[in-house]
Amino acid sequence: MLDKLKKEVLEANLELANRGLVVYTWGNVSGIDREKGLIVIKPSGINYEDLTLEKMVVVDLQGNIVEGEYKPSSDTATHLELYKAFSEIGGVVHTHSEWATSYAQAGEAIEPLGTTHADYFYKSIPCTRDMLSSEIQGDYERETGKVIVETFKQLNPMEVPAVLVKEHGPFTWGKTPYDAVYHSVVLEEIAKIAYKTNIIKNHHCKHRMKEELLDKHYLRKHGNKAYYGQGK
Amino acid sequence: MLDKLKKEVLEANLELANRGLVVYTWGNVSGIDREKGLIVIKPSGINYEDLTLEKMVVVDLQGNIVEGEYKPSSDTATHLELYKAFSEIGGVVHTHSEWATSYAQAGEAIEPLGTTHADYFYKSIPCTRDMLSSEIQGDYERETGKVIVETFKQLNPMEVPAVLVKEHGPFTWGKTPYDAVYHSVVLEEIAKIAYKTNIIKNHHCKHRMKEELLDKHYLRKHGNKAYYGQGK
Amino acid sequence: MLDKLKKEVLEANLELANRGLVVYTWGNVSGIDREKGLIVIKPSGINYEDLTLEKMVVVDLQGNIVEGEYKPSSDTATHLELYKAFSEIGGVVHTHSEWATSYAQAGEAIEPLGTTHADYFYKSIPCTRDMLSSEIQGDYERETGKVIVETFKQLNPMEVPAVLVKEHGPFTWGKTPYDAVYHSVVLEEIAKIAYKTNIIKNHHCKHRMKEELLDKHYLRKHGNKAYYGQGK
Amino acid sequence: MLDKLKKEVLEANLELANRGLVVYTWGNVSGIDREKGLIVIKPSGINYEDLTLEKMVVVDLQGNIVEGEYKPSSDTATHLELYKAFSEIGGVVHTHSEWATSYAQAGEAIEPLGTTHADYFYKSIPCTRDMLSSEIQGDYERETGKVIVETFKQLNPMEVPAVLVKEHGPFTWGKTPYDAVYHSVVLEEIAKIAYKTNIIKNHHCKHRMKEELLDKHYLRKHGNKAYYGQGK
Repeated sequence: MLDKLKKEVLEANLELANRGLVVYTWGNVSGIDREKGLIVIKPSGINYEDLTLEKMVVVDLQGNIVEGEYKPSSDTATHLELYKAFSEIGGVVHTHSEWATSYAQAGEAIEPLGTTHADYFYKSIPCTRDMLSSEIQGDYERETGKVIVETFKQLNPMEVPAVLVKEHGPFTWGKTPYDAVYHSVVLEEIAKIAYKTNIIKNHHCKHRMKEELLDKHYLRKHGNKAYYGQGK
Repeated sequence: MLDKLKKEVLEANLELANRGLVVYTWGNVSGIDREKGLIVIKPSGINYEDLTLEKMVVVDLQGNIVEGEYKPSSDTATHLELYKAFSEIGGVVHTHSEWATSYAQAGEAIEPLGTTHADYFYKSIPCTRDMLSSEIQGDYERETGKVIVETFKQLNPMEVPAVLVKEHGPFTWGKTPYDAVYHSVVLEEIAKIAYKTNIIKNHHCKHRMKEELLDKHYLRKHGNKAYYGQGK
Repeated sequence: MLDKLKKEVLEANLELANRGLVVYTWGNVSGIDREKGLIVIKPSGINYEDLTLEKMVVVDLQGNIVEGEYKPSSDTATHLELYKAFSEIGGVVHTHSEWATSYAQAGEAIEPLGTTHADYFYKSIPCTRDMLSSEIQGDYERETGKVIVETFKQLNPMEVPAVLVKEHGPFTWGKTPYDAVYHSVVLEEIAKIAYKTNIIKNHHCKHRMKEELLDKHYLRKHGNKAYYGQGK
Repeated sequence: MLDKLKKEVLEANLELANRGLVVYTWGNVSGIDREKGLIVIKPSGINYEDLTLEKMVVVDLQGNIVEGEYKPSSDTATHLELYKAFSEIGGVVHTHSEWATSYAQAGEAIEPLGTTHADYFYKSIPCTRDMLSSEIQGDYERETGKVIVETFKQLNPMEVPAVLVKEHGPFTWGKTPYDAVYHSVVLEEIAKIAYKTNIIKNHHCKHRMKEELLDKHYLRKHGNKAYYGQGK
């Protein structure tokens, strides 16, 4: 059942690995068939190189396994909460990708700092609040999803298709599983340049090299008497 | 028409991707035939792996499509302003490459800090001013080009073949499309080492390791009684 | 003798190199046969591409060579101390991997900052104390092992399968040689994101890009009048 | 003539490129035949992929071209000064590798911070003084060599086979061209971890994640009731 969606979810999982966003088994992609109310998701703890269509797991929106020999990703309940709350999304991704995870660990939102961000995200990429002890000790993965949904109370998830879960890592989503992976790649790139932008803002100094050395090197390559290379 | 230039522009676009300067479709290269007054440019939103000679778009200096089935890069009007103002250039590149974009987002020029910079750029690599609301809400991409040209009022674009557009990213240029890509690669490298240089200047500390441990490790490999490796 | 263990240790050494954790010969993996009380370890100073089953060295827990034409890794005595003190471990790894080594050089433990850490390490990853002059000038590599064991007096080595040796680099361990390498990979990733997390905590600023530029770029791609790409 | 040395120098140049230490033509390796007093060096401005034995240039210690159709590297005079002053060396390398160049641009020596440094360098890796205007405007490349030699007045070049030329980049050397490249690779690695070590020293904070979240994640993978993965 759901062969087309399984293929999409399998390929999206492999794309995630090919883009360098996962180490070992640290990530998972799911997709939903809205009509049937069924989700296809990566099995838990299986290496990407061992993934096949047959190993994909089908669950319903309550998390019951409908098809598959394997246990679904341990983060399945989080995915389900997102599908229930965000009616336009068709795919969800979770990773521990290094730059986005570092922002999540720091507990800081990623503010829009340039057009790369603006091309994909209409606002800051928010970071969730601390989870309560009762949430951590209760139905933890489901509560994680609920905290994400709470974070988007005033936000349109289609305009900001990503979140940082505090002291954990990013989730992204999109109209399809591929779109959700696309947003993971973009989020990672945006986190990386936001980090560097802030460092430059804090550390820029007006120091310049010795002017004569600048002249010497520019002119030995480009001046009338240039002597670098083999001449023309 | 313009088969040779199309080939140059196609190859320069692919070189940009091979050098790791673009994610997805985030970059574009164009080239100009000065005699005919025509520009060849990458089509908008097409992946690099799908680019072919046939997909290249030919526009005139007013931005009218002269040949091609696709829409040209959404940044075409910026390229055109550069060709009009900088009469010696034959190619233009725009990227969101991570290091140069971080400087652009920070709004800081890249000062010359060493001979790597001096070998290619005779001055600081400038960052443009903030765009006005009227510029953003008007003919935005053309205004972007005009702001770049304004930034070069006192500068020779052949001596400084790159600019950082504030809160956006870098544009570079050169005598040919390949040269323009070459300058994008060099700019990225220079931005990277400028960043690190400034960090070192701010964070260097005079701390050293325990002297005896230094001796021990050096001498177990290089001393008279060295015992690392298989001996001679 | 010990053919199966030799194969495991060889493959674990190669995995270490494939994962990008070693430069030249800067790392070594060993494994133990607890019944026989024998350890298989990489030969000293041999390049990874030249490693074969025949070159593996077998030593006993006193460090006597039991089989092999080559000298064992110069760090063998450190491995032996770990096998003697930590009875549940089956493999040990030492590297100079860049992020973990930087923490070791700084003399700082890696505090748990997020769930990536928590998934593998139940506490901080400790850094050893300075070695005494007598330890450095005595049986140095054995003393290194003893200082690691001392660091774990209050810690369960199975719950924290890694240590940073001050001004030196990381050691990791596990139930098998492969597990020990797995922990080296995870440690490196955790060190990397801990570093970035701390930078973000120190350098985050609330600055945002110009709001109108954000609107412009988001809407030229996603608004009703979007004009990026080839349309639908 | 000098076929064996030419092969060594060619291979060392290619090794430099394979190790990722050069962008475009930004580096060069030479080797010396001490008996004949002749040096083989890379031609100026030739891409690594185009290098062949025939293109190597032979010069004498005064810089006269003895064999070869191409002009030698523009840094040849610097190499010659090193061969004249450091009688035990057989190969010299110059690069603009990113980490070492950043230290050179910052004008800071690389202090020994750990055993990775100590395994190869017995002291700090020094940075030269500013060059005088007369040196820059005189026989610049030869003066660069002389400033390096001056920096080593109190140092043994065999114990510290590398230097940072201020606002320029690193030079390394060794008994053979391959050794000199080996030292460039090691220097780059040491510069990288020195940089990170200093950042950690300046930015370490004692903050830790929420303790219950740590417990939750560790125990869902490793506790008695672990539910991550497919079970045993």
